[in-house]
Amino acid sequence: MANLGPNIEQLIEAFRCLPGVGPKSAQRMTFHLLERNREGGERLAKSLTDALTNVHHCQQCRILSETELCNRCSDEQRRHDQLCIVEMPSDVLAIEQATHYQGQYFVLSGHLSPLDGIGPEALGIPLLIELFDKDSIKEVILATNPTVEGEATAHYLSQLAHARQIHVTRLAHGIPLGGELEYVDSGTLSHAFSGRESI
Amino acid sequence: MANLGPNIEQLIEAFRCLPGVGPKSAQRMTFHLLERNREGGERLAKSLTDALTNVHHCQQCRILSETELCNRCSDEQRRHDQLCIVEMPSDVLAIEQATHYQGQYFVLSGHLSPLDGIGPEALGIPLLIELFDKDSIKEVILATNPTVEGEATAHYLSQLAHARQIHVTRLAHGIPLGGELEYVDSGTLSHAFSGRESI
Repeated sequence: MANLGPNIEQLIEAFRCLPGVGPKSAQRMTFHLLERNREGGERLAKSLTDALTNVHHCQQCRILSETELCNRCSDEQRRHDQLCIVEMPSDVLAIEQATHYQGQYFVLSGHLSPLDGIGPEALGIPLLIELFDKDSIKEVILATNPTVEGEATAHYLSQLAHARQIHVTRLAHGIPLGGELEYVDSGTLSHAFSGRESI
Repeated sequence: MANLGPNIEQLIEAFRCLPGVGPKSAQRMTFHLLERNREGGERLAKSLTDALTNVHHCQQCRILSETELCNRCSDEQRRHDQLCIVEMPSDVLAIEQATHYQGQYFVLSGHLSPLDGIGPEALGIPLLIELFDKDSIKEVILATNPTVEGEATAHYLSQLAHARQIHVTRLAHGIPLGGELEYVDSGTLSHAFSGRESI
């Protein structure tokens, strides 16, 4: 990597902060922008600065938003008695695209992970408890990931909601559509088997 | 993708100018920087602006450089009688890392492609001819890619050099080290067979 000059090397290093970008990809991105697409590079630098300046978190659901309340939280048409709790903002987009859910969201921005120092505070649980206490929520839908940490977080949240007599549901787990039994992992299969439904 | 806000959507769109980045990756990068690594994002925006401002092309070999002549071209220790011609700046790095070559380089930034309007001018051939005419070069090493366009470009360059009585060589083609005959494509195999060497 010698002899490239400090600006180029800094840019390669800076690209590595992106998820899934290693040294080779970072170098390829750098050369591509500098050799072939300087306009795109300028646009990227400007968009990045604009977004970092203007994008903050919605004060109610904690999703990324350019206004104090995000579009969904300020939308009077949506139901205010359902609250879907997810780990990441991208989960909100996935649910919005795949379902007809019309309620509210709450983004944890992670999951409980005491070993990494991520406790209820970091996930905005105090804010969530305020929402619970407002009394307008009738159903909490837990949509954390089906990982060990996601399940632990869901369990913790369900206890908080139960203590306030709020109905709690969890996304159904089982064999994905189009999946073949032979290739489904044993955890999913055992979960799907014990959770079998009458038809 | 609705309801994200103009700054976020612009940033997702801007990331798509990077090679190998589709809509999903661009969204992931955007959320990652805004949610988890704002410092990295600021560093990236700054490095990008710095590099776009300060990095230009070396006036002799056309590689990306922050100075008028790149480190290699201004290095008196390197040989000035060998000139290696490559398509991309990353090829220079690959050769520098893999070999002990101590001569000069010339970066075409592409290959001849008349259908895309890329002719000798766009590849800096006039500059290359000036170098040829300086009379210091004894050997031209053609290191363009072994693609149809790369071969055509190499053929064109070899004629230019031959007309000036300069010795021309081409990187050896054949079965890659560690390759298995069974899985080598037929073009490579036929090339390697007809180019067999006495041992």
